Amino acid sequence: MPTTVNEPIRTPALDTMLDVLRAPFPGAGSNIALRWVDRVLRGTGQVVFQGNWLTGLFILVAIGINSRVYLVAALVGVVASTGTALLLRMDRGLVDAGLCGFNGVLLGIGLNAYLSQDFTAGQWPDALLYVYIVVGAAMTTVMLAAISSLLGSRKVPALTAPFVFTAWMFIFATLQFGDFHPGPLLQAILPSHLIATEPVTIETWYEGTFKGIAEIFFQDNALSGIVIVIGIALNSRVSALMGLLGSLSGVAVALLYGASETPVALGLYGFNAALTAMALGGVFFVLNRMGALYTLFGTLVTVWAWATMSVLLSPLGMPTFTSAFVIVGWFFILAKAGFLGVVPIDPADSTYPEDNLRRWRGGRLSDGR
Amino acid sequence: MPTTVNEPIRTPALDTMLDVLRAPFPGAGSNIALRWVDRVLRGTGQVVFQGNWLTGLFILVAIGINSRVYLVAALVGVVASTGTALLLRMDRGLVDAGLCGFNGVLLGIGLNAYLSQDFTAGQWPDALLYVYIVVGAAMTTVMLAAISSLLGSRKVPALTAPFVFTAWMFIFATLQFGDFHPGPLLQAILPSHLIATEPVTIETWYEGTFKGIAEIFFQDNALSGIVIVIGIALNSRVSALMGLLGSLSGVAVALLYGASETPVALGLYGFNAALTAMALGGVFFVLNRMGALYTLFGTLVTVWAWATMSVLLSPLGMPTFTSAFVIVGWFFILAKAGFLGVVPIDPADSTYPEDNLRRWRGGRLSDGR
Amino acid sequence: MPTTVNEPIRTPALDTMLDVLRAPFPGAGSNIALRWVDRVLRGTGQVVFQGNWLTGLFILVAIGINSRVYLVAALVGVVASTGTALLLRMDRGLVDAGLCGFNGVLLGIGLNAYLSQDFTAGQWPDALLYVYIVVGAAMTTVMLAAISSLLGSRKVPALTAPFVFTAWMFIFATLQFGDFHPGPLLQAILPSHLIATEPVTIETWYEGTFKGIAEIFFQDNALSGIVIVIGIALNSRVSALMGLLGSLSGVAVALLYGASETPVALGLYGFNAALTAMALGGVFFVLNRMGALYTLFGTLVTVWAWATMSVLLSPLGMPTFTSAFVIVGWFFILAKAGFLGVVPIDPADSTYPEDNLRRWRGGRLSDGR
Repeated sequence: MPTTVNEPIRTPALDTMLDVLRAPFPGAGSNIALRWVDRVLRGTGQVVFQGNWLTGLFILVAIGINSRVYLVAALVGVVASTGTALLLRMDRGLVDAGLCGFNGVLLGIGLNAYLSQDFTAGQWPDALLYVYIVVGAAMTTVMLAAISSLLGSRKVPALTAPFVFTAWMFIFATLQFGDFHPGPLLQAILPSHLIATEPVTIETWYEGTFKGIAEIFFQDNALSGIVIVIGIALNSRVSALMGLLGSLSGVAVALLYGASETPVALGLYGFNAALTAMALGGVFFVLNRMGALYTLFGTLVTVWAWATMSVLLSPLGMPTFTSAFVIVGWFFILAKAGFLGVVPIDPADSTYPEDNLRRWRGGRLSDGR
Repeated sequence: MPTTVNEPIRTPALDTMLDVLRAPFPGAGSNIALRWVDRVLRGTGQVVFQGNWLTGLFILVAIGINSRVYLVAALVGVVASTGTALLLRMDRGLVDAGLCGFNGVLLGIGLNAYLSQDFTAGQWPDALLYVYIVVGAAMTTVMLAAISSLLGSRKVPALTAPFVFTAWMFIFATLQFGDFHPGPLLQAILPSHLIATEPVTIETWYEGTFKGIAEIFFQDNALSGIVIVIGIALNSRVSALMGLLGSLSGVAVALLYGASETPVALGLYGFNAALTAMALGGVFFVLNRMGALYTLFGTLVTVWAWATMSVLLSPLGMPTFTSAFVIVGWFFILAKAGFLGVVPIDPADSTYPEDNLRRWRGGRLSDGR
Repeated sequence: MPTTVNEPIRTPALDTMLDVLRAPFPGAGSNIALRWVDRVLRGTGQVVFQGNWLTGLFILVAIGINSRVYLVAALVGVVASTGTALLLRMDRGLVDAGLCGFNGVLLGIGLNAYLSQDFTAGQWPDALLYVYIVVGAAMTTVMLAAISSLLGSRKVPALTAPFVFTAWMFIFATLQFGDFHPGPLLQAILPSHLIATEPVTIETWYEGTFKGIAEIFFQDNALSGIVIVIGIALNSRVSALMGLLGSLSGVAVALLYGASETPVALGLYGFNAALTAMALGGVFFVLNRMGALYTLFGTLVTVWAWATMSVLLSPLGMPTFTSAFVIVGWFFILAKAGFLGVVPIDPADSTYPEDNLRRWRGGRLSDGR
């Protein structure tokens, strides 16, 4: 997949220009309101590994053009999780980097979406559900601190695990309460082998690939996916490319092995793979030749792992979220301790793929093991 | 919830008196039989975090007034698990503190209860089942050593995880053997959304709260719950209050969000929450203002987490046990590494909430991170 | 069970003779092809903890006499997983000891078997399935590195967890793809209590015990089991005895507690127990008196744990693989940190049971905690 990515990264001039965007939001240093704007936007961008407020802004726009309900849910989530981190006095550097907010973004939209009768457009939550979302978003911060305590010493990031675990913990429960209204997708069924498959068109490929990006944020909208890719590219062209290739891999593998057309076109086979491709491809590993192969390997496994998670959860009728990415991502990142053939990047030292590669070549990258 | 708990803890005189009860059972120092009495009673008390033989005695009485079958099961469990610890030469300090016995208590009653046709009163086990209970109780000790090896270096206790994991490991299996007789509660069913709810009366609140305490020990009996609360209060008024408030929170949240009345009145929404409230509220965190807020947060999450666990296990027809408490408790305690806003207590240094708070104020509490 | 095993281990003369077999395959030091022969055979032998190419050869013969399909699958698996380890530059010592190959052997046969319409004989995979097996086998190497990173510092081995986790990750997914053909055993069903049991004959005992050894490699063939036991005995008589006693324990406990005859006769109650008995009995713990008791304890628990795993997976219709062994093995090995009554062996320092015992008696065994 990404074998010729060496070319676009020799562009320090462009990257120097873009560094303005990677810096804090104008005025965030002195104004508390603007600092919150920076945290909210940056937190949103961190879902796709981009510590860049402009990326976050593009993502919020991408969500907003699909559903204002989800835009509000995302904002509630990022504010609640970031606020909890401040209240409990987490490391201020993590908070300001947006790293305490991105799980909250996903939790907010996720809970809202699966508790809406119309998944695509969403439904305004009532007060009880907003309380639930706020507590859930706060819980992602507890999970982040807990998981970081377990994995931090091995230089392994929590990824979106705080979101996935909290979302499961909060969404299964809704079945037991009459005042929640689980959406139509939450249907328990015993798994069985897929028989019939639908015809595949060129639209399956196009929609599947872009919706695969949008589905990271639960948006069933190809245009949202395009806007998000642009937002990512403003911080890192490599990450944008990885995301697209990852999502495309999902579509390709799914169709090659005879998956059902509907979930493929919805981007469901791609959204986990896109995250794995972005994470392994340049962010947590240097994207040299072996890094590219390793990324391809992990991306491929993620596609199948998503199918496995959907089978595993079907007797509960519960969503996979980004669990396939978390599981595969963790295994591939943990494995760095045993593999001298790849160049891991310390999460605390990782900036963006182009810069990571450049620093590695210059011998200025700290030890990632 | 516990915002005005500062008052009752300024009572060193009472606590000094009570220290007699916290000391070993009279004669335990010199007589091996009396030392075992101390281990059995103390181990029973440790289920609710009280290293106090009198608390243990009250709990055994509370169990006995509901069912002699379960009283015997509890004794078999505590003796088998403690004996295993001695045989395999675990740290004698842990053994004498009752910390190798409390999971055995729960395992003994739990296996017996779910393999009885009448859950409330219990049924005398046959020889095969007693062997099973003894091996299961011994297994909780292996799990305790194993989990402590994993979490100990982070100053995180095993909580009741050895019981929960062993109980699951042993109770699922019973379906595969004709000579076990799984009780009527073990019915597998695909989860679906709760529709009808029953009317709630004042009795729901009263029964739900006290049975929430009793259900920690599988006792479907409000009077047992009252006796247990008294037993806890003899060691720590704060823990007793936390337990009651935790159980009450379970009832309140469940009813607010429209849960079914039957499980609420049985205390099922409260028994995990009660444990979380006791654990976080003074035992593993200093109960200052932020500690109280943190406890409230964890207790709330536990109520929903219990509902989630019951959904998760429904396709297997298996009980949740105290899994919601273990999971939420672990996340909240692990998270201490990242939160400077709360004051964690080293499990090895924790005594009881009043004393922990007093020592913290006096600067005599060792670092809990 | 193994209380009188002290006798056969005073045979250094025989062991000195056998050391020729434990050494690398003739010519492996200088010839790359022969080095690969050594890795393949040794990797196969490591499934049952024997770093001995002759043991591996016997196992491959045992598989081949049952099914050439599975023989090829085993070879594909061991080559792919070992090759991945070399490509990613894992520790060469681990690779040459066969430790990066044994999970691949199992993954290869396992995927092939459950995706065949005839489980016993197997079905030749098509190209898509071979790709899947190769990627899966490669994934076991990633999991091995990842799990070793998590457990290695505690001197706890990965056991067959890389195989089990990868196999689950890859086999659940097959339901979602029309181009896979899941076999008849993959049927999801809600668990219910076993009612009728079939008559037990002496054949149940004989078949169950030897098929319990063969089922480790998915071979439904008593003769294969006998050949494998001989292969193990050529490296360690104690391990062979442990394997047989473990498998026999599975049959005995299952029948004592009224399990269904069919799975017992297929060796399903025994194959996990056989692995636990071999692992705890001499390989990871010194087989002194307490070690023998500890092994018996773990073996017993594994029998029930297998039943539990089969219930746990029934709503998914998925196989248990050696998960019961992995779980129980991990708990019993992790627990060594807390138990001074047993003598653990550092996995990196373990050779074979007789030698481990001899070195312990001579005070030449390094600390296993």
